[in-house]
Amino acid sequence: MLPTTNHNPAFNLTRASHVSLSVTDLERSRDFYRDVAGLVVTRETDNAIYLRGLEEASHHSLVLELAKEAKALYIGLRVRTDDDITAAEKFFKENNIEHRRVEKDYQGPTLQFRDPVGTWMELTSSMDVVDRKMQQFNEFVAGAPQRLDHYQVVTYDVQTATDFWTGLGMRMSEYTAKDGTDELWGTWMEVKGNTHDLVFTNGRGPRLHHFAYAVPDGASLIHAADVAGALGFGDEIDRGPGRHGISNALFLYLRDPDQHRIELFNTHYQFIDLETPPIRWDVSNPRRAQLWGMPASRRWFFEASEFPGEEVHEPLLQANPDTLEDYLGIH
Amino acid sequence: MLPTTNHNPAFNLTRASHVSLSVTDLERSRDFYRDVAGLVVTRETDNAIYLRGLEEASHHSLVLELAKEAKALYIGLRVRTDDDITAAEKFFKENNIEHRRVEKDYQGPTLQFRDPVGTWMELTSSMDVVDRKMQQFNEFVAGAPQRLDHYQVVTYDVQTATDFWTGLGMRMSEYTAKDGTDELWGTWMEVKGNTHDLVFTNGRGPRLHHFAYAVPDGASLIHAADVAGALGFGDEIDRGPGRHGISNALFLYLRDPDQHRIELFNTHYQFIDLETPPIRWDVSNPRRAQLWGMPASRRWFFEASEFPGEEVHEPLLQANPDTLEDYLGIH
Amino acid sequence: MLPTTNHNPAFNLTRASHVSLSVTDLERSRDFYRDVAGLVVTRETDNAIYLRGLEEASHHSLVLELAKEAKALYIGLRVRTDDDITAAEKFFKENNIEHRRVEKDYQGPTLQFRDPVGTWMELTSSMDVVDRKMQQFNEFVAGAPQRLDHYQVVTYDVQTATDFWTGLGMRMSEYTAKDGTDELWGTWMEVKGNTHDLVFTNGRGPRLHHFAYAVPDGASLIHAADVAGALGFGDEIDRGPGRHGISNALFLYLRDPDQHRIELFNTHYQFIDLETPPIRWDVSNPRRAQLWGMPASRRWFFEASEFPGEEVHEPLLQANPDTLEDYLGIH
Amino acid sequence: MLPTTNHNPAFNLTRASHVSLSVTDLERSRDFYRDVAGLVVTRETDNAIYLRGLEEASHHSLVLELAKEAKALYIGLRVRTDDDITAAEKFFKENNIEHRRVEKDYQGPTLQFRDPVGTWMELTSSMDVVDRKMQQFNEFVAGAPQRLDHYQVVTYDVQTATDFWTGLGMRMSEYTAKDGTDELWGTWMEVKGNTHDLVFTNGRGPRLHHFAYAVPDGASLIHAADVAGALGFGDEIDRGPGRHGISNALFLYLRDPDQHRIELFNTHYQFIDLETPPIRWDVSNPRRAQLWGMPASRRWFFEASEFPGEEVHEPLLQANPDTLEDYLGIH
Repeated sequence: MLPTTNHNPAFNLTRASHVSLSVTDLERSRDFYRDVAGLVVTRETDNAIYLRGLEEASHHSLVLELAKEAKALYIGLRVRTDDDITAAEKFFKENNIEHRRVEKDYQGPTLQFRDPVGTWMELTSSMDVVDRKMQQFNEFVAGAPQRLDHYQVVTYDVQTATDFWTGLGMRMSEYTAKDGTDELWGTWMEVKGNTHDLVFTNGRGPRLHHFAYAVPDGASLIHAADVAGALGFGDEIDRGPGRHGISNALFLYLRDPDQHRIELFNTHYQFIDLETPPIRWDVSNPRRAQLWGMPASRRWFFEASEFPGEEVHEPLLQANPDTLEDYLGIH
Repeated sequence: MLPTTNHNPAFNLTRASHVSLSVTDLERSRDFYRDVAGLVVTRETDNAIYLRGLEEASHHSLVLELAKEAKALYIGLRVRTDDDITAAEKFFKENNIEHRRVEKDYQGPTLQFRDPVGTWMELTSSMDVVDRKMQQFNEFVAGAPQRLDHYQVVTYDVQTATDFWTGLGMRMSEYTAKDGTDELWGTWMEVKGNTHDLVFTNGRGPRLHHFAYAVPDGASLIHAADVAGALGFGDEIDRGPGRHGISNALFLYLRDPDQHRIELFNTHYQFIDLETPPIRWDVSNPRRAQLWGMPASRRWFFEASEFPGEEVHEPLLQANPDTLEDYLGIH
Repeated sequence: MLPTTNHNPAFNLTRASHVSLSVTDLERSRDFYRDVAGLVVTRETDNAIYLRGLEEASHHSLVLELAKEAKALYIGLRVRTDDDITAAEKFFKENNIEHRRVEKDYQGPTLQFRDPVGTWMELTSSMDVVDRKMQQFNEFVAGAPQRLDHYQVVTYDVQTATDFWTGLGMRMSEYTAKDGTDELWGTWMEVKGNTHDLVFTNGRGPRLHHFAYAVPDGASLIHAADVAGALGFGDEIDRGPGRHGISNALFLYLRDPDQHRIELFNTHYQFIDLETPPIRWDVSNPRRAQLWGMPASRRWFFEASEFPGEEVHEPLLQANPDTLEDYLGIH
Repeated sequence: MLPTTNHNPAFNLTRASHVSLSVTDLERSRDFYRDVAGLVVTRETDNAIYLRGLEEASHHSLVLELAKEAKALYIGLRVRTDDDITAAEKFFKENNIEHRRVEKDYQGPTLQFRDPVGTWMELTSSMDVVDRKMQQFNEFVAGAPQRLDHYQVVTYDVQTATDFWTGLGMRMSEYTAKDGTDELWGTWMEVKGNTHDLVFTNGRGPRLHHFAYAVPDGASLIHAADVAGALGFGDEIDRGPGRHGISNALFLYLRDPDQHRIELFNTHYQFIDLETPPIRWDVSNPRRAQLWGMPASRRWFFEASEFPGEEVHEPLLQANPDTLEDYLGIH
């Protein structure tokens, strides 16, 4: 069933902003994100490394924390002001949504919560301001990722996730549905004016499928792949380069040393005007996954990062085994 | 003096959306915008041609109207809903701002007004929805412009213009000021979450300096220049390709057959978080105009399109003749 | 066993120049090569279509001939002068190599012959000169292929093929050999000063695996893929985009409506100086096939175009079934 | 008068290969060529630095020698074998051309000579082989120059220079001539199969105008300009980016700290077939200089590097002052 965006939400979300992952070897992960992905290291401590994209004025958009197991700790969104944090806290309390205030270095007021499908989220209203590196072209490395853009979460219940987030003001730009029905299989939702900040797709979840950084252009994407190949990570490209039908992104997916997945992508489109309807794709339409290009690997389809302590559930909607291969775009 | 953004404006602006120009030969101008600039023709009538960028779902972002004289007729912004048009009308009435309701084909409720420095603007809340062409890659021409992005207006009074527009909720991302003072020489203001929707620069005004379309990447920009050269418009590039210090845009400026100016550009950055201060540039710093590249031509600096019936005034702030060449970036 | 280039060959080869294919539907094939591959049509007759790359001053580099069966008719090389045709004829006669003089429209003196592994070749010393289109940027379509560059032939006997062609002055730039041996599995041979004009790889042959056109850059390659997707040929990309280890080419392979294969590629390197040794790759090294990128499809490995009347032989060297998957780069 | 290429020259030239410059501060020049131009340092000594392009297997293509004055010392060409050095020596002796055998580190037999218009040249038949870096994509810097490609020399007598070099087997691909006459103003000559290895243009000479490295694509060219801007060399771009009519090159010219000029360029075309005539351009045709783009600076037209001890002569052909501006493409 198509969701309805709440245009007067309880608080104001503004964008996808930061993600935190636990990793089992800090140096190895830092080397990957700095040299292969091309991010900038803002700060290193004994237990954590803070990174950001080249154009970002915020202290961090990726936080790596040392741990015994590799997990997706939470994914972060910005709210407009400190008052929005207060309003969010009130909303979660009133709606029995698990949440907690946390103190975070380099961040303003911060609130973590668990959405109805078990995704762990973190809201903050500000971060320490650092230099934008976007004109230090001599420091551009690999794909030269400019900024964190969006997340994709695998969930066992796309409808519930979508209802919740559109209730908080997100708007659906594109979606997949079971052929001839309104059963949602994947929803692309945005709050910042282009196609997506947060995506939910049907599958065993909750698990973080990937987080994505925008790169300047297709040439950067190819250079990223070339650098990955040169540094021994050619086999860790588990999809792409290719062009998604959904969102029109030119994409490349890479696995980090703990098998967390980062997407580098380019070219999605503006989505602001309210009269524009979302684009619908049948799940059975292979062009939704890619307009061209080699099919994704099975690793891309079936592997993702779990959240600590969150049980993974089988999806409520099951794919027809007869069309699963098509659904996956695996030929 | 630095302006203060009004975060609770009288009505909600959302983005730069459409511009209308009068031209003296419709076919000649259509050929230019379709074949040299690469826009899509949505509709042609005897007196007007409606064009749009490849990804745009709105009926038009450029309207060419046949007339005896080439003028900038108005520049358009979107508001969120029909209620915002009503609220805007009320605001203009209360503040003695010249305005008029107009009926426009293919547009929802529409309101034109004259800002305090004589810029003619048009607000609308919706447009007829048409197909996005962004995946018809076989129809991409020249720079493959995807969407209208922003305007630059030359004004005799940057401070007044900036105060007015920040009062309507726009936010300044970058600015130039006379060295060692707070005297504003140029202001880049945005409402859609990247560096600018509307720019005012000091000079004889009001005049429309240019309107800008975003292209996919640097390769598109070079292809646009190559196509312009092949079609005999190589001499109508009056600046670029180059990289602006301000906004970090990779740019190319072209003059149409009536000498209206269109910019094709790529790569400006996200500007959403409220804690991020605007970037200040001294007017005497040549890097503000370009990080590299050949200086702009005198045509680029001194020529622009007038608005019908609007007297052009000398700027209130005068350049020091000793530094004018530097100011202009002409060596 | 490594071959020895004959630096005083019987006649002077200069470059890969033209290929002829039979196709079962002329219009359908013309549309593919013009609109999806981006070639220029020089001339159409009832039975044949002549095409060329955008920069080529020669009348044709691809000839499509209407027939009931789709075959590779011959692949063409240029010799320096008419005298070289005479010298070649003499050489073939003396060495009992099957050959025939033919009259060809738009070509100078022309000689066809069958090499020792059954590849059908055509030599000519000149062609009618036509306009180079390289500065008609407004006519660039899809990948904007500039010129024919090389061929890859599948053969049952790489050693014999390599010995023959190096005896005619070709020089090996790179090769694959069975691990720890001198058994040649693939040889890249050139005469024009970069990595290859003619490639032989081990397999069921003789069959033409592909012919390749050089495109201006990586952006062109991506645009070619996007256009293929838009025109319904996304599934006919049977490999790429990716980066070959051998020759360092950035590549994209497309199948035409008769399943002939065309490669669009960019970036191979200069190979002129005699002191530079060929680069050796173990067949078991997957990086030879691609530094990164999704593995090739089985179609890419096992399908190729036969020559009319030439029996296809099983390869003399057989892959170890245990390493075949690695050899193929199929994971 | 159009020259005639000697197809049986006294010895076999193969390509432009290496250039030597004296510079006044070795470290400063090394930093420029490594960090701004993107070349690889092969070796540093107290008095000299050897650099090469990323794909080059030869020890050096640029040699910087420490001296009190910045000069162009010589420009280098390769010959095929050691026998060609012997044949060249014999030829120069018989034709009273000043020459000398020299011992050079890392080079095979080496012969320097002075051509009839005072250009100092160096021939060698081999160099020490080093690793090609073309697949170390993580070491690509700035424009990622792959290989030395050609030279442009300003001469007082284009006809004499052209006659001499075509007599040695070079072939003219394009030329400029005074309108309506056969008076040569500029000649583009090649030996390696694309448009030029050696260019002579009319002016005060002999002086080395520039040496050129090929970069992978237009994106690399823009990145080179961005890096130059970031490192403070934005003002040392004295022409470009733009597209030459002659040779179809996409170009960027940079001045080093001693004001030697390096060109980074992309996309010239194959020139092998003997039936293809050279392309003629009237000197008064501004499209010969650029199909589009801002006009070159006066620095680009009038400044060049002198050879030690060589007197600079006024050109035999004088520009008509009425058309000089057009000739220069300065508007």
